[in-house]
Amino acid sequence: MAQVTKTTDRKAAVQVLKNYVNGEWVESKSTQTLDVVNPATTEVLGRVPLSTRADVEEAIRYAAEAYEEWRETPPLTRARYMFTLKSLMEDHFEEVSQILTKEHGKTLDEARGEVRRAIECVEHAAGIPTLMMGYNSETIAPGLDEECILQPLGVFCCLPPSNFPSMIPYWFMPYGVACGNTYIIKPSSEVPMTQNKMFELIDEAGFPPGVINLVNGSKEVSDALLESKDVKGVSFVGSTPVARYVYSKATAGGKRAQCQGGAKNFLLVMPDALIDSMMPAIMNSVYGCAGQRCLAGANVVAVGDDAFYEQLKRKLVESAKKLKTGYGLDETVQMGPLRSKQAKEKVLSYIETGIKEGAELILDGRNLKVPGYENGYFIGPTVFDKVNPKMKIGSEEIFGPVMCLIRAKNFDDALKMIHENPYGNAASIFTQSGKWAREFKHRVQAGDVGINIGIAAPVAFFPFSGWKDSFFGDLHGQGFDAINFFTDRKVVIERWF
Amino acid sequence: MAQVTKTTDRKAAVQVLKNYVNGEWVESKSTQTLDVVNPATTEVLGRVPLSTRADVEEAIRYAAEAYEEWRETPPLTRARYMFTLKSLMEDHFEEVSQILTKEHGKTLDEARGEVRRAIECVEHAAGIPTLMMGYNSETIAPGLDEECILQPLGVFCCLPPSNFPSMIPYWFMPYGVACGNTYIIKPSSEVPMTQNKMFELIDEAGFPPGVINLVNGSKEVSDALLESKDVKGVSFVGSTPVARYVYSKATAGGKRAQCQGGAKNFLLVMPDALIDSMMPAIMNSVYGCAGQRCLAGANVVAVGDDAFYEQLKRKLVESAKKLKTGYGLDETVQMGPLRSKQAKEKVLSYIETGIKEGAELILDGRNLKVPGYENGYFIGPTVFDKVNPKMKIGSEEIFGPVMCLIRAKNFDDALKMIHENPYGNAASIFTQSGKWAREFKHRVQAGDVGINIGIAAPVAFFPFSGWKDSFFGDLHGQGFDAINFFTDRKVVIERWF
Amino acid sequence: MAQVTKTTDRKAAVQVLKNYVNGEWVESKSTQTLDVVNPATTEVLGRVPLSTRADVEEAIRYAAEAYEEWRETPPLTRARYMFTLKSLMEDHFEEVSQILTKEHGKTLDEARGEVRRAIECVEHAAGIPTLMMGYNSETIAPGLDEECILQPLGVFCCLPPSNFPSMIPYWFMPYGVACGNTYIIKPSSEVPMTQNKMFELIDEAGFPPGVINLVNGSKEVSDALLESKDVKGVSFVGSTPVARYVYSKATAGGKRAQCQGGAKNFLLVMPDALIDSMMPAIMNSVYGCAGQRCLAGANVVAVGDDAFYEQLKRKLVESAKKLKTGYGLDETVQMGPLRSKQAKEKVLSYIETGIKEGAELILDGRNLKVPGYENGYFIGPTVFDKVNPKMKIGSEEIFGPVMCLIRAKNFDDALKMIHENPYGNAASIFTQSGKWAREFKHRVQAGDVGINIGIAAPVAFFPFSGWKDSFFGDLHGQGFDAINFFTDRKVVIERWF
Amino acid sequence: MAQVTKTTDRKAAVQVLKNYVNGEWVESKSTQTLDVVNPATTEVLGRVPLSTRADVEEAIRYAAEAYEEWRETPPLTRARYMFTLKSLMEDHFEEVSQILTKEHGKTLDEARGEVRRAIECVEHAAGIPTLMMGYNSETIAPGLDEECILQPLGVFCCLPPSNFPSMIPYWFMPYGVACGNTYIIKPSSEVPMTQNKMFELIDEAGFPPGVINLVNGSKEVSDALLESKDVKGVSFVGSTPVARYVYSKATAGGKRAQCQGGAKNFLLVMPDALIDSMMPAIMNSVYGCAGQRCLAGANVVAVGDDAFYEQLKRKLVESAKKLKTGYGLDETVQMGPLRSKQAKEKVLSYIETGIKEGAELILDGRNLKVPGYENGYFIGPTVFDKVNPKMKIGSEEIFGPVMCLIRAKNFDDALKMIHENPYGNAASIFTQSGKWAREFKHRVQAGDVGINIGIAAPVAFFPFSGWKDSFFGDLHGQGFDAINFFTDRKVVIERWF
Repeated sequence: MAQVTKTTDRKAAVQVLKNYVNGEWVESKSTQTLDVVNPATTEVLGRVPLSTRADVEEAIRYAAEAYEEWRETPPLTRARYMFTLKSLMEDHFEEVSQILTKEHGKTLDEARGEVRRAIECVEHAAGIPTLMMGYNSETIAPGLDEECILQPLGVFCCLPPSNFPSMIPYWFMPYGVACGNTYIIKPSSEVPMTQNKMFELIDEAGFPPGVINLVNGSKEVSDALLESKDVKGVSFVGSTPVARYVYSKATAGGKRAQCQGGAKNFLLVMPDALIDSMMPAIMNSVYGCAGQRCLAGANVVAVGDDAFYEQLKRKLVESAKKLKTGYGLDETVQMGPLRSKQAKEKVLSYIETGIKEGAELILDGRNLKVPGYENGYFIGPTVFDKVNPKMKIGSEEIFGPVMCLIRAKNFDDALKMIHENPYGNAASIFTQSGKWAREFKHRVQAGDVGINIGIAAPVAFFPFSGWKDSFFGDLHGQGFDAINFFTDRKVVIERWF
Repeated sequence: MAQVTKTTDRKAAVQVLKNYVNGEWVESKSTQTLDVVNPATTEVLGRVPLSTRADVEEAIRYAAEAYEEWRETPPLTRARYMFTLKSLMEDHFEEVSQILTKEHGKTLDEARGEVRRAIECVEHAAGIPTLMMGYNSETIAPGLDEECILQPLGVFCCLPPSNFPSMIPYWFMPYGVACGNTYIIKPSSEVPMTQNKMFELIDEAGFPPGVINLVNGSKEVSDALLESKDVKGVSFVGSTPVARYVYSKATAGGKRAQCQGGAKNFLLVMPDALIDSMMPAIMNSVYGCAGQRCLAGANVVAVGDDAFYEQLKRKLVESAKKLKTGYGLDETVQMGPLRSKQAKEKVLSYIETGIKEGAELILDGRNLKVPGYENGYFIGPTVFDKVNPKMKIGSEEIFGPVMCLIRAKNFDDALKMIHENPYGNAASIFTQSGKWAREFKHRVQAGDVGINIGIAAPVAFFPFSGWKDSFFGDLHGQGFDAINFFTDRKVVIERWF
Repeated sequence: MAQVTKTTDRKAAVQVLKNYVNGEWVESKSTQTLDVVNPATTEVLGRVPLSTRADVEEAIRYAAEAYEEWRETPPLTRARYMFTLKSLMEDHFEEVSQILTKEHGKTLDEARGEVRRAIECVEHAAGIPTLMMGYNSETIAPGLDEECILQPLGVFCCLPPSNFPSMIPYWFMPYGVACGNTYIIKPSSEVPMTQNKMFELIDEAGFPPGVINLVNGSKEVSDALLESKDVKGVSFVGSTPVARYVYSKATAGGKRAQCQGGAKNFLLVMPDALIDSMMPAIMNSVYGCAGQRCLAGANVVAVGDDAFYEQLKRKLVESAKKLKTGYGLDETVQMGPLRSKQAKEKVLSYIETGIKEGAELILDGRNLKVPGYENGYFIGPTVFDKVNPKMKIGSEEIFGPVMCLIRAKNFDDALKMIHENPYGNAASIFTQSGKWAREFKHRVQAGDVGINIGIAAPVAFFPFSGWKDSFFGDLHGQGFDAINFFTDRKVVIERWF
Repeated sequence: MAQVTKTTDRKAAVQVLKNYVNGEWVESKSTQTLDVVNPATTEVLGRVPLSTRADVEEAIRYAAEAYEEWRETPPLTRARYMFTLKSLMEDHFEEVSQILTKEHGKTLDEARGEVRRAIECVEHAAGIPTLMMGYNSETIAPGLDEECILQPLGVFCCLPPSNFPSMIPYWFMPYGVACGNTYIIKPSSEVPMTQNKMFELIDEAGFPPGVINLVNGSKEVSDALLESKDVKGVSFVGSTPVARYVYSKATAGGKRAQCQGGAKNFLLVMPDALIDSMMPAIMNSVYGCAGQRCLAGANVVAVGDDAFYEQLKRKLVESAKKLKTGYGLDETVQMGPLRSKQAKEKVLSYIETGIKEGAELILDGRNLKVPGYENGYFIGPTVFDKVNPKMKIGSEEIFGPVMCLIRAKNFDDALKMIHENPYGNAASIFTQSGKWAREFKHRVQAGDVGINIGIAAPVAFFPFSGWKDSFFGDLHGQGFDAINFFTDRKVVIERWF
C-alpha cells in the first residue's frame, strides 16, 4: 500500500492547490506557495498558494452575492444539500481519512474518528428546519401578536488550526450555511489537502455557486477576512494569543466572533478509580493525535496516598511504553508524528524546560526512531514525574505527547490547581464515586467535562464549550449555540385595523 | 401638587446620593458631584457623586465575593427574590414613576409605562428555574450520557443611558442576577434618582449583600468596570460611537459584551394605511418621550401619490400641533422637555442644519414657552417636510421631537432608504395589506419591526433586538438571549465502570 | 408506457402480498385474501392477505423482543438508519410514486407530492438526537440536581386509511422508531402495494430485525393490535366514528392513542380576494386527489355582494370544467378516479342527496367517461350552488370531487358556519387583508389554518393538527407532538453523600 | 393553642361549606352533606355538601361563558393573577397549613411542605408568557411562512384525592388557567376545608368570575363533569381502578385525560449505601404523611450479604421506633394519624394479611395510643420482615405506615422485582456508586426516580411523571407536559398575493 501511496504522493507533490470560489476551482493570483509536507515521510504532498487580498475580496464578493438568493432558499431545501453532502462524505470516507493521515500524521483510526465527527455536524445541520425555528406569542395585548424570527446575517468565515483539518471547519460551516449564510473557509496552510478533497464533495453536492468558498493562504488571507465590512462573523480556533487577537480585531470591526484558544487539561484520578479500566482512556487522552488536541489530557493529577500514586505511575509508564509510534497509514500504529518540524522542536524545547524546572523525566520519547521513516517528526510517549502545576510544563500547552504527573493531597487541592491555571477547556475525573463526580462536574471551571472519559468532546448536538482563556465570545461552536451565532433575532409586533 | 413637590425637591436638592455596595448604603470616596436637574423646572433634585476607581473596585470585590454563595443558591430561591422585588415595585409604582418624571422630564404616563416595563423584566426573570434549564441526551454511545448545564459566570455590570432610568438597567440586571451572577449598575449620572429609589426596594427585598450593587458616577466608573478582570461581561446602551468603544474595549479584555447604539427609525406609511387610526401611533412614536427613545420614529416615509402625501402631511401637522407640551407631572401634558440643556441645544442645532440642508420646516417647536416653566428645556413638536434621507437630519439620530417627512416612489424605494441608513434598530410599516406586511417583516434590515405599531418595543419575553450599527454583539437583552448571555454552557460526558 | 405497465400489472395480479416480520418476508397464516384493484383500469394488481390474530401476535412478539436492543441503540445510530432510508426513498422515488398511482388512482404528480411528504418525515426523524433531548436543572436545592429524560415505551402501531398509502404511516412510524420504539404498520387493505414497496426499502436500509414490521389485513388485525398488552400506543387515521372507536378501545386498555377522524373544510373567500390568483389553490383544494383528502376544501363560502358572488361562481365552474380527469399515470391528467367502486357509489349517493335537499347542481360530474378506462371509478368535477351548511352535503364529509358553494353575509357569519360544523380539521381564508387574516387565524376553531392556501398541510416539522371531531387525543402526528407521543418522561432527582 | 383551636373548630363544625361559582360563594342545591372529621381529634370540622348535577352544570355553564373572555386576556395579564395569588398564599401560609393539618392529620411541617409545593406551581404558571410560546418557520417554501400557536381549549376540571388537599389540585389548575382555560375543582369530600380557604384567596386575587370554580361533592359531581360536552379535559389522581375508569370514561367522550393511579414504590439499598446518612430519607419516605403518599417508599429492598441486611434491619427498626406519632398541630410530632377510620381499618386489614402470608411483623404499630387523642385514627410505624414482593403486602398499595423489608440477591434481581410489580410511579436507590445510580436511572421502569432521595417528587418545573399502572394518559401534570395538556396546537400556513 505504502508504495502506491508514494507514487500518488509524488504526482501530487507538483500540484498547486486551487481555491474554490463561486462554484469554480480557480487559481490564486499569488505566486507564493508553501509546501505541504507529510510529517511521517517528509514527502511534499502539494503546494498551497498564499492567496492575495484580491483573491479574498473576490471570494467575499461572490459570497455576498450568493447570499441574496441563498437566504431566500427554504430551510428544508438548504437542509437537503446537507443530506447530499453527508451521503457523499460517507461514500468518500476512507479516501478523505487517508488524505488526512498523510498530511497531518495522525493514525488512520484517528483520522476516521475525526472525519466521522465532521459528518456528524453535517447530519446535525440537516435538522435546520427545526433548529432554526423562531417563537411567538399571541395576544401580548388585545389584538397584538409578537413573534421572533431567526434570520441569517450574510458572509461568515472560518480560520481553523492545523490539528483537525476536516473536523474543525465543520463545527461551524454546516451550521452557518444551513442557517442561510454564505461561507468562506481558509484552511490551515499546513494541512490544506483534506479540505481540498472535501470541497470536491461540496462541489459534487451541487451547492449554488458562492455559497461555500475555499481560499487557501495564511495571515494575509485572515486579515483580509477580518477587515472586510462584508464579513459578518468569524469562527477561529488556534492558540490563545491569536484567539485574543482575532476576537479583538473582529469585534472592533463590529463583527461577531467566537474564538477558541489553547488548553491545558487536567485528568483527576481519584483513589477509587479503576485504574486498569481507565488506562486506555488516559492513554488516548494524553497521546492520541500525539497530544495535538485542545482536549488532550496533559496533567494527570493523582489524588491519594503513596501506594496509590506509585501504582498509578507504574501503570501509566507501562502503558505509555507499549504504544506503537509510526506512520499513521500503518493500521497497527497507535501514535503518529508531530505535525511539523517546528511543532516537534517546540515540544523538544518544552522537554528541556521541564528537566531544567526540576521535573523528573521518567519516560523519554525524544530518541525514538521509526524504521523507514527516520526523518519523520516523531517523538515517543513521554512522561514527567514530580511536576508542579506552576512549572511551565505544568501550566503551558505543550501540544505534544508529554504527560505531566502531579500529586494532590485531596480533591479540593486538585480542583484548586485546575482553577489556578488560566485555561478552562476540558477537565476529567476518574472515579467510581457519584459524589466526587457530582462535585467535579458542578464546580470545575472548564467547559467540557469528562467523568471517566479521557476526551470530553461534545457530540455535534451539544456546544463545544471552552471557558476562561480557552474561549473568547459568548456562543460556542456546534449545538444550539451555533444556531444563535449564525442568525440574528428579528422581533415583529403586529396589529391590524 | 406642584408646591408640595417643590418643597420635597428643595430638601432633596442638598442630598448627595450614596452608592449601594454589599447591602449597605455607602458614601462615595469622591468629593466631586454633579447636580441632578429637573429639566422642566431646572430645580436641582440632588447631587450625584462621581465615584472613584477605588469605589468601583470595592464594589467589584464585594460582588465577586457574593457570587460564590449566590451561584450556589437554588434558582427557585433566586427567583423568589424576584417575586418579592416585583411586589415591592408594584407597591411603590407611583412613587418611582414620579421620581422618574421629575428627573427625566417625560410625562407621568410615560414614566408609568417605563416602570411597568421594568417590572415586566422582573416578572420574566422570576421564571428562571425553567428559563435556565440545560438539556441532555442519554446513551450518546453505549453507556455514555451527555448533558449541557447552564452556569453563571461571575460579576456583570450595566452602563445605561439617560433616557430610561428605570427600565434599561432592568433589561439586563434581573436576568443576570436570576442566573446566579452578581451585578453592578452604574446609572446615568444625569438621572440617578430613579435607581436610587429602586435600590431602596432591592434593599427591602433582602437580596444577600453584594448581589446587586449601585455605583454612581461617570466615565471613570465605566472604565474601571471595563478594565476589571473580575467583571465578566457588560451591557451597554447609548450612542453608537460609545457602543463601539465599549464593545471593543470590553472584548479586548476577553469580556462578553452586548452594546446597543443609536437609531434612526423609519415609519413607512403605505397608501392603503388607515391614516386616522394610525395617527396616535405615529404621534407617540415620533414625539413620545420628546423623541428621546432608541425606538422613536424619526423618518415618516409616505409611499403614494400626491393626494395621499398631501393628506398625510396635513394630518400629521394637525396632530402634532395639538400635542400639549409641559411639565410631565401635570396629567394633561402629552410631551415633556428634553432631558437637559445640552440635549435641547443639540436638537436646536439639528433643526438649524435641516434648514440649511434645504428641508422645509413646516412646524417649528423652537419658540415654545411653557407657562410656569419658562426655563425648562422644552422644544415643541417639529416637522420637516421634503427631507432627503441622505441629509444629516434624515440620516442621523436627532433624539428630539423632530419628524422628518420623506416621500418614496414605492415600497422597494422606501426599503432601500432604510437599508442605506447605517442603523437598524426598529422600523414600522402602516398598511392594511397582508402582502406588504409580510414583505416588510421578511426583508427589512432592522431588529424590531412594527406592523401598524409605532414603537416596536419587544415585551420582556422577547429579545430587544437591534441590527447593524444599532447593536454590537450577538446576544441581545431580554428574552432567551439574556439567558444565554448571562450563563455559560458546560458540557458533561459521563460513563461508569 | 401504459402497455408495459399493464404487463407488469398482470404479473403482479397473481401475487399474494407477504407480511414483513422480524426482518423477513413471511406469508400470512391466513387463506383469505382481498383483491387490490387499480381504480382507473379495474385491473387486479395483487392480493392482500387478511392476516390472522396469530400473525399479529407473532409480529408483536418480535417487535417487543427487538425493542430491548433498539431502545439501547444510541439515538444518533438510530438516526443514521433514517438517513439511509431517506437516500433509498430518493433513489426509488419514481417507482414508489407509480405504484401509488396505480393502486390508489391519484395522479402521478399527486403521488410524487405524497411520497415527498413521506420522505420529509424521515428527514425530520433523522434529527432525533436533538429532538429527543431531555432537560435538567442543577441545584434545585443545595446538593440536589433534577433532570428529565425522554425514553421510548415499547411497541407502537399505525392503522392508516386508504387515501395516502405512503405518507400517512410516515406521520408516525419514523418518529416512533427514531425515538427507540419498535413498530407495526397495518396498511389499508385497499392500498397495500405502496407500503409493500416501501418495506423493501426498509429491508434494504438494514434496520435490525423486528424494529419495523408490516402486517397486512383488516379489522381482525386492528383489533388484535388494539387488544394486545404489549402494544403501548396506536396512531389511527380514518373516519370519525372509527376514530372514536379506536380511541375509546385503545385508551380503555391503558394505551396511548392519537386518532384522526373526518373533516369538512371550509374555504372562505373574502370580497377582496384576488380570485384569479386564488383559483389554482381552490381547484387543487377541492378536486386534488379527487377530493379524497382530510384537508380537502369542501365548502367554498363566498362573503360579499351579488356581483362578487356571481363572478366567483362563474370562475369556479369554468375552472372546474377545465380539469382533465383520467388515468393518473398519464402526465396530462389533473384528476384521477375515486379509490374504489364503493367510494364512487357513496359520492354518487351524496350527489343525489344534495339534489333532494334542494341544492342546485350547476356542474355534474356523474356521467364522465374516460376513454380507454370506461370502467374506472371516475366522477368528474362537480359543483353544487345554493348549499346550506346544515344540509347533509354541506355538513358531512363527501370525500369526493364535489364543491358546495355557500354564501355568507359577512365574516362573522361565515365563521359561525365553520363553528357549527362538528369537524375542525382545516380551514382557509382567501383575502388580501391582514386584518381578516389575523381574525381568522386567531379565532377559527380548526387545527390547520390556511391563509391564501388551499391545503393547509403542515410540513413535517410542525404537528398535523386537527380539532373537534376531527381528532381524539392530545398529541398530534409530526412535529414536537410526535416526540412527546412516542416517549415518556422520566424525572430523576439525585444527591450524593 | 389546642384550646383556642378547638373553640374555633366547634364553631366551624356547624358550617356547611359553600361552592364557589362564577365569582360568588353559593350554597349547593343539595340537602345531603358529609361530615369533615379531624382524624386526630375526631371532631367535626364542617360539613361538605354533596352537590347535585344541577350545581355542576351551572358551574360548567359559567366556566364556559367566562372562557370566551379569559382566552382573549393576554397571557401576561393572566400571569399577573398568578403573581397576586402567590403573594396571598405566602401571606396566608400558616393559616392554610393549619387547616390542612386539622382536616387531613399530617404534621404541620408536612402541611407546610405541601402548601409550599402548591405555591411553587403557581410560581411556575406565572411564567406562562414564555411557557406557552408557539414556534414558527419563515419561508417553508418561497413566500410561505408557517407557525404553530398554542391556544386554550375551554373548561377543564380536576378530581383530586384526599391525601394532598392543597397541592394536588395545583399540579393542574394554575397551568390550565394560565393557559387561558377556565377551571372547576371538585375537592375530595374528605378534605374540602383547605380548598375552601384557598378559594378565599382566589376570590381575593380577583380572578374574573367563572374562571376558577369550586364544586364540593362526590361521585355524582365527578360523573356530571365527566359526562359534560363542555368539559374538554380532566385531571384525576386516585387509585388505579378509578383512574382507569375516569380515563376510559373521559376519553370515550372525546375528552383529554391524565389520570394518576396507585403506587408501590421500592427503595433499593445497595451494600455501599451510607445507611446512617440515608436513614432520615428512608424514614420520611415510608412514614411521612403516615405513608399516605403516592410517592411513599413501601418496599425497602436490601441488596447484600447477611451482615449488611441485619445491620440495615436493626437500624430501620430503631429509627422507626423513635418516630413520635401524634396530633399534627403539635410541632414535636413526626407522624400523624391515618386520614379516616376507613383508611385505618384498611391498613389494619393489610397487616393481618401480611401476618397470614407469613411475613414477620417485627414492629407493630397497631396498639399505639396517643394521649389526649385516644380516638384518633393512629397506627404507629410498622415493619414487616421477610416480605416476598409477590405477597399482597409486597405488591399492593397499603397506603399506611407499613414498611415491607425484602432481600434481593443482587441489583438485577432487585430491578426484576420492581418490574414485576404493576405500578411504576417512583423508585429510589441508595448507593455511593455512580455506576449503580446510572444503571438504575437508565433502566428502572418508573417515572419518578430518586438517587439517595426518599421521595422523588419533581419540582413544579418538571412533570410529575408516573408509568405503567400508575398513570393513564400521555401528558403528565406540572412542567412542560402541563402546557401541552392544557393547550392545543394550531398550525397556520400563509402566503400573500
